[in-house]
Amino acid sequence: MALKSWLSISPKSHLSLANIPFGIVSHAKATSPHSAIAIGDYALDLEIFAAHNGFSGLSTIQPHQAVFSSPTLNAFAALGKPIHSAVRKYIQSILLDSTPFPEVLKDNKELQAQALIPLKDVKTHLPMQIGDYTDFYAGMNHAFNVGVLFRGADNALQPNYKHIPVGYHGRASSIVVSGTPIRRPNGQILENPAAAKKTPVFSQCKKLDIELELGAFLCKGNEMGQVVPISKAEDHIFGIVLLNDWSARDIQAWEYVPLGPFNGKNFGSTISPWVVLTDALEPFRSNGLENDTEVLPYLQEGGAKTFYDINLEVDLKTSSGKTGTISKVKGNNLLFSFPQMLAHHTIGGCPMNIGDLLGSGTISGVETSARGSFLEQTDNGKKPIIVDGEERKFLEDGDSINIRGVCGTEENGLVGFGDCEGTILPALDLKF
Amino acid sequence: MALKSWLSISPKSHLSLANIPFGIVSHAKATSPHSAIAIGDYALDLEIFAAHNGFSGLSTIQPHQAVFSSPTLNAFAALGKPIHSAVRKYIQSILLDSTPFPEVLKDNKELQAQALIPLKDVKTHLPMQIGDYTDFYAGMNHAFNVGVLFRGADNALQPNYKHIPVGYHGRASSIVVSGTPIRRPNGQILENPAAAKKTPVFSQCKKLDIELELGAFLCKGNEMGQVVPISKAEDHIFGIVLLNDWSARDIQAWEYVPLGPFNGKNFGSTISPWVVLTDALEPFRSNGLENDTEVLPYLQEGGAKTFYDINLEVDLKTSSGKTGTISKVKGNNLLFSFPQMLAHHTIGGCPMNIGDLLGSGTISGVETSARGSFLEQTDNGKKPIIVDGEERKFLEDGDSINIRGVCGTEENGLVGFGDCEGTILPALDLKF
Repeated sequence: MALKSWLSISPKSHLSLANIPFGIVSHAKATSPHSAIAIGDYALDLEIFAAHNGFSGLSTIQPHQAVFSSPTLNAFAALGKPIHSAVRKYIQSILLDSTPFPEVLKDNKELQAQALIPLKDVKTHLPMQIGDYTDFYAGMNHAFNVGVLFRGADNALQPNYKHIPVGYHGRASSIVVSGTPIRRPNGQILENPAAAKKTPVFSQCKKLDIELELGAFLCKGNEMGQVVPISKAEDHIFGIVLLNDWSARDIQAWEYVPLGPFNGKNFGSTISPWVVLTDALEPFRSNGLENDTEVLPYLQEGGAKTFYDINLEVDLKTSSGKTGTISKVKGNNLLFSFPQMLAHHTIGGCPMNIGDLLGSGTISGVETSARGSFLEQTDNGKKPIIVDGEERKFLEDGDSINIRGVCGTEENGLVGFGDCEGTILPALDLKF
Repeated sequence: MALKSWLSISPKSHLSLANIPFGIVSHAKATSPHSAIAIGDYALDLEIFAAHNGFSGLSTIQPHQAVFSSPTLNAFAALGKPIHSAVRKYIQSILLDSTPFPEVLKDNKELQAQALIPLKDVKTHLPMQIGDYTDFYAGMNHAFNVGVLFRGADNALQPNYKHIPVGYHGRASSIVVSGTPIRRPNGQILENPAAAKKTPVFSQCKKLDIELELGAFLCKGNEMGQVVPISKAEDHIFGIVLLNDWSARDIQAWEYVPLGPFNGKNFGSTISPWVVLTDALEPFRSNGLENDTEVLPYLQEGGAKTFYDINLEVDLKTSSGKTGTISKVKGNNLLFSFPQMLAHHTIGGCPMNIGDLLGSGTISGVETSARGSFLEQTDNGKKPIIVDGEERKFLEDGDSINIRGVCGTEENGLVGFGDCEGTILPALDLKF
């Protein structure tokens, strides 16, 4: 049964008492970005809550309350997972109908008026200061689908694919929070990729795409030259967000040999504003895709369920206002877990920092309707997606994409991530 | 003729009055990292200099003197190139034998004792907070040499190579300052890459290599969705450092398809501690390698000399103490300039920030002795380099590499970069 709150929370809310995700907000009463949690239709402003003695019942956090005034969650993350758990549980307990601390908020109308801000009145900000961003490629169905398009079914997956959580360093500066518009990039493309003579032209991107991903934020780093063993990797993972790794397929196709994607990816990546702590995802642990290749011992998890059963959906709203869900897929369609990615990332001694973001890679199922990119769904632009009668091969200017993700049931309380939305602005009209 | 100082500066010093590079130091009298310039055998501590009214003759910097107490040069860089020029020229003028401000330092023995710290007593720190690091591949001779090794001479350069400053996102967290030891990475390698069945083993890197590069730090950013046109790109470049992009060739070879280098690169990259401002390099502007392909207009520089004639050398000191210079090459062996790299990096709207670092790619000449990596010099480990009778195919534990770079003549004053040194520590002995 769902936990019951004295606060009115719709059973359909993704921000149930079972969730309590953390984010960074500003609003009319407190214009500098600072911490909050999301609950039902409200943000509980943690800076205001702390300043009004809201944490009177949780002595462990009291020496650290300045973290809630910080403009990112990095300082809170740095306190470590036992403190995150304690704070989340305490906030749950404050919000319970049967709260042992009714004087803190339930019976304190003044603090309710101060600290509970309707989400519609809140601006969300990037939740963490991201030092480095790494994007993996663990969505095996995606890797296979894309491999078939470019190399045929027999050579779709590279020889290393099942041995290594393949990944690349992404661009941290271009990660933005949901609601930030994304400008269509210009760049070099080949008008006729099949021609023998490869002469690029300068053009706006004509194959603007999405990638449906999950992101994991780190709450613990490692020194350069040291490793994070897989047995400890979960201690380093703060929480999960949705991630749309916008991709310019035509720019990417021309540039990516031999050093990987660059301008095809670094014009913007969108994340959802609320970091869902791993504690909230515990009930939804699952296995990932089966790996028919035995990985090396440093990647072996001994059957631990380190993936999450998250229902992911991608909504398209076209520039003319037509709307539809273009993809539905489970978040465990991954060959490697975040702990495996982290163990691999650090096996050579790469230093990780609090706030670093790991992307899962594009999550696709097997069926067309479960594929997490236009590239896959449209067979590289050959078969349009149809949304309410309107066709799309790739994204057009004014189109908006929203990724949503939710775990659980209304009965037990839904655990969701909020929006991960971006709308395409036209390319800059550049003259040279 | 070289500018003459009242301070004793050897004509052989790379830190002449014509240079005045900026860095971050700490020392016994001021243990928090803060700004300094290097001159002859000394660091002039700018925090102490500013606190003792050293900038009395330069009104433009006076409202901004707090930047010299900052633990990175980012705040100073943010003041913009006209201020950097003014500060550098003012410090030059203070150090001139014929200084118009003798009371500031020349005749002020007390401030000399306070602010001039022997370089041997100074610890240097990473000069900038690096948000994102991008490594390019503009050393065409290197790209060709490596291409010949892996694909043969006819297909050595990829079709995009002469059109695009090819680059990839590097790992900002693993950039360290000269003198930081580098631990040999462990990882997945193929023991027999030619075998049909590709089964990796877990191993320490057996092909540990260097890459001789230049790095450019940015002092000006751009908003996401906006571009830095090539005509403005030089305004964004703060200064130049030496860069050794340590590379694990065997790890890289197995992992890099299709998304590019990852653990083969992210275990450490070393930079020199002193940022040589572009002003100091003005006399050494030169052309780069000729591009026989016409680049698109957004990359055209109209013949501007945007490369630098820097004499680069790589010294190896083996674990047994044998020493030798293993490579000598000019820094203008590049097909694309830093302004071209920046124009390309932002053409799709990627946001750049102050402190971002661009690597040139490995700089190699045509002759074997001018190649900037062991991979090229030893033909992938086939022909050893011989240093004072000792053979090296790749780096061994305890080996030390130092890159040095200098422009100009003793007569006019040398402009150099200081050391870019790292010593190899043995791999961690990991058990799983």
